[in-house]
Amino acid sequence: MSEKITDSLAQLNEKLLAFARARDWEQFHSPKNLAMALIAECAELVEHFQWLSEAQSQQLAPEKQEQVALEMADILIYLIRTAERLDIDLIAAAHRKIAINESRYPADKVKGDARRANEYGDE
Amino acid sequence: MSEKITDSLAQLNEKLLAFARARDWEQFHSPKNLAMALIAECAELVEHFQWLSEAQSQQLAPEKQEQVALEMADILIYLIRTAERLDIDLIAAAHRKIAINESRYPADKVKGDARRANEYGDE
Amino acid sequence: MSEKITDSLAQLNEKLLAFARARDWEQFHSPKNLAMALIAECAELVEHFQWLSEAQSQQLAPEKQEQVALEMADILIYLIRTAERLDIDLIAAAHRKIAINESRYPADKVKGDARRANEYGDE
Amino acid sequence: MSEKITDSLAQLNEKLLAFARARDWEQFHSPKNLAMALIAECAELVEHFQWLSEAQSQQLAPEKQEQVALEMADILIYLIRTAERLDIDLIAAAHRKIAINESRYPADKVKGDARRANEYGDE
Repeated sequence: MSEKITDSLAQLNEKLLAFARARDWEQFHSPKNLAMALIAECAELVEHFQWLSEAQSQQLAPEKQEQVALEMADILIYLIRTAERLDIDLIAAAHRKIAINESRYPADKVKGDARRANEYGDE
Repeated sequence: MSEKITDSLAQLNEKLLAFARARDWEQFHSPKNLAMALIAECAELVEHFQWLSEAQSQQLAPEKQEQVALEMADILIYLIRTAERLDIDLIAAAHRKIAINESRYPADKVKGDARRANEYGDE
Repeated sequence: MSEKITDSLAQLNEKLLAFARARDWEQFHSPKNLAMALIAECAELVEHFQWLSEAQSQQLAPEKQEQVALEMADILIYLIRTAERLDIDLIAAAHRKIAINESRYPADKVKGDARRANEYGDE
Repeated sequence: MSEKITDSLAQLNEKLLAFARARDWEQFHSPKNLAMALIAECAELVEHFQWLSEAQSQQLAPEKQEQVALEMADILIYLIRTAERLDIDLIAAAHRKIAINESRYPADKVKGDARRANEYGDE
């Protein structure tokens, strides 16, 4: 008996695509516009942390924790929408990027070094 | 015989946690710092599109497409790291947020309306 | 004999407008595009600080200080360009905004209160 | 006869410093935190434009124009605050940066070329 396993990200993608289509919003969803919406959502996450110390940012009160979770959901949602429009496989891209980072930042050379800790996004 | 299906996002989370630990970089990964790194990655995505028309942003040359895919990977990577530090289930949060959006933006009321199309992130 | 005092911001505006025109770049300078360029520059500033502690961010080495100064210059430059395209007087707008903030955050009520310290930008 | 010309930016700086001190908010104003607040304000500007076409972004209705002006004021305000904390002369830095851009992008070589139009902020 065959079984189809739908990955959680693929499932979200389907749901979001249907959501956009039902509202005729695909017309606004160019990658350019989606990238703007994506960074605007990131900024809402940043706002939650901007006056907190690093330690405070690690210990959120339950209500704030849920607000932060929903901001992060917004980021994921727009990221998935952008990937859909550009036909990019996010999971595969992440594995490619991690492989690049592993060769770029050998564990024994960069251990505990904050200056090298922009590990993922450099370039 | 039981079978454990590991979701693609859970798998990435494990890999990224191991990556950070092997480099002793968890000490830099406060949610405050990670949110900064996250928005910096988003900005690199925005940069790819800032001088393109919306139509051009939809039709990237292969080399640019791969650069964009890797920027989006960076965003996903930092998002997963932040979620791990805050013990947030991204997938569950996204489903909660979509449910909120569905009641906030009924398809028959907002159809094709750009003014309402800040569908996901509105406070 | 009359004397014309040219304000430093007005002077920069003239110089930047001439720079864009000499390169035929005004065609790319829609407010939408400029806002994207502006936030991308902000992100480069954020990147300088993302792995620093707050105290470290206050004590930059000379070379880093100059890099940060040039990133901040980029932000000012794009801000001036956007204002020019939209015919907005930045200085006058800032004074209007400060007046709003003064009535919104009376000194005797919010003193030392971090929760209220999103003083300027709160809608 | 001596004459003191106070530049508009210097004047704003004085006013903003007094505002922060009267509220005992300097303690929150590390460059790290201010950079976060600055990018959050930029994102509010981006939000105004994210679903607009480039042409629409150039022709704002009066009410929206004023909202945009106040967002831009917020950006300028945080930029000035950051510069004050780091003892950076924004105007001088902008002139240094423009000189760099002029030698980097000779008008006769980059005329009308969108690919080179990331004129100001390029590394």
